[in-house]
Amino acid sequence: MLLLIPGPVTTDARVKAAMAQDYAPWDNDFRTLYRQVCDGVLAIAQASADEHVALALPGCGHFAVEAALRTFVPPGGRVLAPSTGAYAARLQKLAAEAGRVAVPLAVGTTERVDPQALADALERDPTLTHVALVYSETGSGICHDVPHLARIAHALGRRVIIDAVSAFGALPLELRALPAVDAVVLTANKCLEGLPGAAFVVARRDSLDAARGNAGSWSLDLADIYQHTLAPNAGPRFTPAAPTLAALAVALELFRQEGREARLARYTANMRTLYDGVIDLGLTPYLPPELQGPIVVNVRAPDAPTWHLQLFVDALKQRGYVISNFTNTEEPTFRVGCIGAFGAGQMRQAVDAMGGALRDIGISREHAGNARLFPQPLIA
Amino acid sequence: MLLLIPGPVTTDARVKAAMAQDYAPWDNDFRTLYRQVCDGVLAIAQASADEHVALALPGCGHFAVEAALRTFVPPGGRVLAPSTGAYAARLQKLAAEAGRVAVPLAVGTTERVDPQALADALERDPTLTHVALVYSETGSGICHDVPHLARIAHALGRRVIIDAVSAFGALPLELRALPAVDAVVLTANKCLEGLPGAAFVVARRDSLDAARGNAGSWSLDLADIYQHTLAPNAGPRFTPAAPTLAALAVALELFRQEGREARLARYTANMRTLYDGVIDLGLTPYLPPELQGPIVVNVRAPDAPTWHLQLFVDALKQRGYVISNFTNTEEPTFRVGCIGAFGAGQMRQAVDAMGGALRDIGISREHAGNARLFPQPLIA
Repeated sequence: MLLLIPGPVTTDARVKAAMAQDYAPWDNDFRTLYRQVCDGVLAIAQASADEHVALALPGCGHFAVEAALRTFVPPGGRVLAPSTGAYAARLQKLAAEAGRVAVPLAVGTTERVDPQALADALERDPTLTHVALVYSETGSGICHDVPHLARIAHALGRRVIIDAVSAFGALPLELRALPAVDAVVLTANKCLEGLPGAAFVVARRDSLDAARGNAGSWSLDLADIYQHTLAPNAGPRFTPAAPTLAALAVALELFRQEGREARLARYTANMRTLYDGVIDLGLTPYLPPELQGPIVVNVRAPDAPTWHLQLFVDALKQRGYVISNFTNTEEPTFRVGCIGAFGAGQMRQAVDAMGGALRDIGISREHAGNARLFPQPLIA
Repeated sequence: MLLLIPGPVTTDARVKAAMAQDYAPWDNDFRTLYRQVCDGVLAIAQASADEHVALALPGCGHFAVEAALRTFVPPGGRVLAPSTGAYAARLQKLAAEAGRVAVPLAVGTTERVDPQALADALERDPTLTHVALVYSETGSGICHDVPHLARIAHALGRRVIIDAVSAFGALPLELRALPAVDAVVLTANKCLEGLPGAAFVVARRDSLDAARGNAGSWSLDLADIYQHTLAPNAGPRFTPAAPTLAALAVALELFRQEGREARLARYTANMRTLYDGVIDLGLTPYLPPELQGPIVVNVRAPDAPTWHLQLFVDALKQRGYVISNFTNTEEPTFRVGCIGAFGAGQMRQAVDAMGGALRDIGISREHAGNARLFPQPLIA
């Protein structure tokens, strides 16, 4: 069974194998593994160990997004949050329920964040001390130019929090060159190709020192977790999902062997194979090629009376592929993840299976009824 | 390697084997597994499915304790929290940082919570709307009579939150008979003998309905998680540690085969084997037998010049046993967990290994220098 969802992703057998052991989280060997994993995450962020630190938080990406907002935006503080889609909406809700003011910036559902609009919004409202950006918006599949937006925020004297959950390890990020960024949020189970259960925040040490007392939650206080890392032989603060961290140690070694650029190229090849493949099936991707990111592809649902997302998902699962049984687009779509431990050959087979699954539910190529809005193939 | 720590515990090979698979958390098969796991937890709480629900939270037990405090105690609300030890202190800190007032009730480090003192404190201060109790205090090893204390709180019209993290699945709990209890907090990786990464709160449905809007944190809002469970074909709200939940499904099946009383009897036999065993080694347990709970045993450090906790831990690990390399007692001790997928035979071997490890670091039986304060054996 191949997972084709935008995380948790399909993982290498060696990564999963590391889970089949009982780990004592404060044992000295595990403390070493724990610090190595954090250091590995820090290196992928191209961060400076003097200026930055990678902090682990048990749980999911949303918890780490809330932790970053609570820690770096003081209670009642105002953060500009471009409304890029479902995950930006979640970020806004996490901020609001934590007593921070998330000020939306309108962005079309099939548009990138406009750098000028961001600059204008910040210039108009000096009370906006922070900007919170989603790097790869799973809802649409669009990747935003977050490094560029972070530089704009920097030029205007604002701090930046990046939700890089779906992007980290694939999309470029050089934290050393982005001094405005207080925090980058990620998890083990997306482009790092680990298992779920562990989130991370790569954060500035000076910002963490300045943020003590902000969080209003001991569980989600990154400044406290940071203090904990300063102890000799530091280990986890609270009980981590130890097998997930052990598996991530293996996944990080595989990442180092592959390299970020090669991983991004592999995901991009997966995406293009899928994108062109569904066009060949008579279907239409949700995004035009110039907006389509490499992480997840939404495909417009066939305009056929027998279309039913769950039936299609079930038929595809019978053929060995798991895709999401829900989407975050307004229009009916199905979505397919392009990330995980597999390549374009497997994606080609998955596209064939999609053709078969469509036939299973009574939709032939001729009757997909789904005009080829973007006829140009992505692969020459 | 056998883990003899008070969690994460040694698990059965069949439990770990369930981790070696990629899971799609919103796939229909996983949604079914997810609900079955929650229902299994509910059954162990001897709760009423009409009145109670088991809610899963990614992460660790502290997160779930904070979630319960935030959800059921309104902002600024006052909760009586007996100071039973390290984990009660953590609960108090979680409450305070979340803007709730944790009012301590003094309890000696080697005493059980006095029911009369609890009643007096509640009668003295009508602003105390809640009581928060730790069932098995890992710091000392003492188990408190939480069902009895909950009935006292009920008689005085107060609500109760139970941190049962180290107790759930072993110590008796019949939630149906304890209407004052709003929430019981537990994790997968203690007496349920699962892996770490998943916490749970068994809570009253009416209390969850009444608590909407309290939490001040979307991540830790149990009322929101509850609303999520009411949808048809409900699945996890945010990304769970899916392998941990799949492993817990296996662990719960093993639990059903063994039964709670047999599991408690096994842990009690482990504890007695250890307790008497360390006395035979010339050492003294931290607690007298009448206070010693079945979950974790603290042992006073030998009064020998070559004693060094980490060296002892290392020597024991060389022999195949992992114990904690820290304790929560004021006096120097070492602590040994009695929970996990093993029995008294293995604990007997572990005690032999402790004798060997003591010799390794230059401490003979005669020179343990540790008077037998409690000479009577626990096992006749």
